[in-house]
Amino acid sequence: MPGTTLDAIATPALILDVARVDRNVTRLRAHLTDLGVAFRPHLKTAKSVDVARRLFPDGWGPITVSTLAEAEYFAAAGATDITYAVGLAPDKIARVGALVAGGVDVTVLIDTVEQAQALGAAARDGIAMPAVLIEIDCDGHRGGLLPDDAVVIAIAEALRAGGIEVRGVLTHAGESYACRGGVGLPEAAEQERAAAVAAAGRLRARGFAAPVVSVGSTPTAHFARMLDGVTEVRAGVFMFFDLVMHGIGVCAVDDIAVSVLATVVGHRADKGWILVDAGWMAMSRDRGTQRHPVDQGYGLVCDIDGTPYGDLIVADASQEHGIVTVRPGSDATLPMLPIGTRVRILPNHACATGGQHDAYRVVDSGGRDVIATWPRMRGW
Amino acid sequence: MPGTTLDAIATPALILDVARVDRNVTRLRAHLTDLGVAFRPHLKTAKSVDVARRLFPDGWGPITVSTLAEAEYFAAAGATDITYAVGLAPDKIARVGALVAGGVDVTVLIDTVEQAQALGAAARDGIAMPAVLIEIDCDGHRGGLLPDDAVVIAIAEALRAGGIEVRGVLTHAGESYACRGGVGLPEAAEQERAAAVAAAGRLRARGFAAPVVSVGSTPTAHFARMLDGVTEVRAGVFMFFDLVMHGIGVCAVDDIAVSVLATVVGHRADKGWILVDAGWMAMSRDRGTQRHPVDQGYGLVCDIDGTPYGDLIVADASQEHGIVTVRPGSDATLPMLPIGTRVRILPNHACATGGQHDAYRVVDSGGRDVIATWPRMRGW
Repeated sequence: MPGTTLDAIATPALILDVARVDRNVTRLRAHLTDLGVAFRPHLKTAKSVDVARRLFPDGWGPITVSTLAEAEYFAAAGATDITYAVGLAPDKIARVGALVAGGVDVTVLIDTVEQAQALGAAARDGIAMPAVLIEIDCDGHRGGLLPDDAVVIAIAEALRAGGIEVRGVLTHAGESYACRGGVGLPEAAEQERAAAVAAAGRLRARGFAAPVVSVGSTPTAHFARMLDGVTEVRAGVFMFFDLVMHGIGVCAVDDIAVSVLATVVGHRADKGWILVDAGWMAMSRDRGTQRHPVDQGYGLVCDIDGTPYGDLIVADASQEHGIVTVRPGSDATLPMLPIGTRVRILPNHACATGGQHDAYRVVDSGGRDVIATWPRMRGW
Repeated sequence: MPGTTLDAIATPALILDVARVDRNVTRLRAHLTDLGVAFRPHLKTAKSVDVARRLFPDGWGPITVSTLAEAEYFAAAGATDITYAVGLAPDKIARVGALVAGGVDVTVLIDTVEQAQALGAAARDGIAMPAVLIEIDCDGHRGGLLPDDAVVIAIAEALRAGGIEVRGVLTHAGESYACRGGVGLPEAAEQERAAAVAAAGRLRARGFAAPVVSVGSTPTAHFARMLDGVTEVRAGVFMFFDLVMHGIGVCAVDDIAVSVLATVVGHRADKGWILVDAGWMAMSRDRGTQRHPVDQGYGLVCDIDGTPYGDLIVADASQEHGIVTVRPGSDATLPMLPIGTRVRILPNHACATGGQHDAYRVVDSGGRDVIATWPRMRGW
């Protein structure tokens, strides 16, 4: 029937292999169960209630989000335990309060006394208060405070003065993305764990219960060998994986669940180019493998069934054109792909490529039937 | 009133300065009028009927689009003369035919005999036919045929055999983006003109009327000194401009009409960082100035009224975090921007940053009032 197989739907389109999603989820959940920690998946990659249902087939568990729009969207779908894992802007407190007033257990993230004071002022104005995690820097990657920074205690005291719950600490091993082929990831995971546990210990020594010790990144979540003292792990891109995660050493190409279906629209035999109708608007501008040992361009090209051709990549992209070539340095030959041929392109970065699309067209491994269309949310 | 000024709307948000849009449009239109050619603006950057109204205050003129979804969206709003300037996939012919059957004068782009034959087959199936432009390569940038390639004539003959109108030729000087500071742009414009005119001449020598000779890119459109033989010019990003166009030498920073409003959410004084709530999801992953003499990171930071702080850029970005620093090598000092401060970030690439947002919040130069909200379309 037209429109219901990968041979027939309009291109470019975002394709999700749900069997691979289920496999990726099962693997990480089993690992975290072995380590004795709770799991709080990050839904910033998926941005989809339907994908969330694969994580929580028996009802909502705790989740992480990156925007208040995500929090509102998942709360409307039934989520009741949400950590908003981006530093809280004071002018977003009212929106957080509305979620809390609606019965959602929201946890926010701060790393300055000013933010704690802004929460205190909002509490005095009658806004319902979220719980708070203090952001800890474990590797110099982004925000947060060093575990022994006196500001950690100052924030906790400011929160206590405002009658606001100090729920604990949160850190994110963003520098784990600089690892390649798995090397250094167990150590990055231990560094992440140790920083968070140390900070929680300092809070507890000052009389704060700090029941939550939250760590997480997809690479460290998979390579952690021991998580003593940690209460929960966050990870998001692991559901889909991508070429960056493959380069870091966290997954095989065969684990990548998301791809962009495209159609061949031209050739430049003189240049060794095949032109497809997936440019950067469909792939995103993410060039996350640019400095990896294997640069995947804008994506690795597979046949319509998801089997890579080999060293065939989207080497360059315009808004709606992808230029497919053999990877520079490879001795592979350019396959003959006639005009109209459909290909699937594995992305560098699932979060970024997903953000370019309004829906997933869902397939089961090995099949071309589109078994469902799952909308994605966006915005802030 | 809350929600109606740049001080109050939720961040991140895409801001459009409509006075700058009008100024940019007036400038290019005057230049093309001087050169005696028609103007067919490309709406892939704006993707907005409201922006199109600034181009056509007295009723729709000819437009260019990059997707069939854009063609359908603008046709629904009244556009009747649309060039779809991406190589036509055979399985998109039926959608084109539906637009033609609905009364829209659609022109499509091809550069292979296979595409001409696919159109012929569709015509025999009773699908309403668009007019066709043959894509010419003027600078080796992407698709198209060299002006003297025998395939140009073979395509035209295949179209004639199928009873389909050969409307002419189209080329795009994509390599003009490699110029810096304006150097080489008049020459690139002349090369673009000459290639298109030569190809049209060959078609006419074989008895094809080829009434349309279409050229265009924002850099060459502004730097062309003579366009004899050209009938129309296409350009899109000029409406908004961006830091890439500034680096190429086509506009001043003060001409850039689009920016992302963001809020300061953290500091890392030890690292010289200010954290804002606009990451790559709000800015896009576009790093188009990466190889320019002045690398703008993910964007140039201005105050809420749009005045640049100087050498302050978004040096790195996560999904929802931007890391603002002084540009490496600059002796500027990091300004003290308290938590909650609002800034405006000029993007590298207006087409890519626009694609991350669902709407423009519209301001008039110098004012903080949001005078309108203009939706953007997306998808394919």
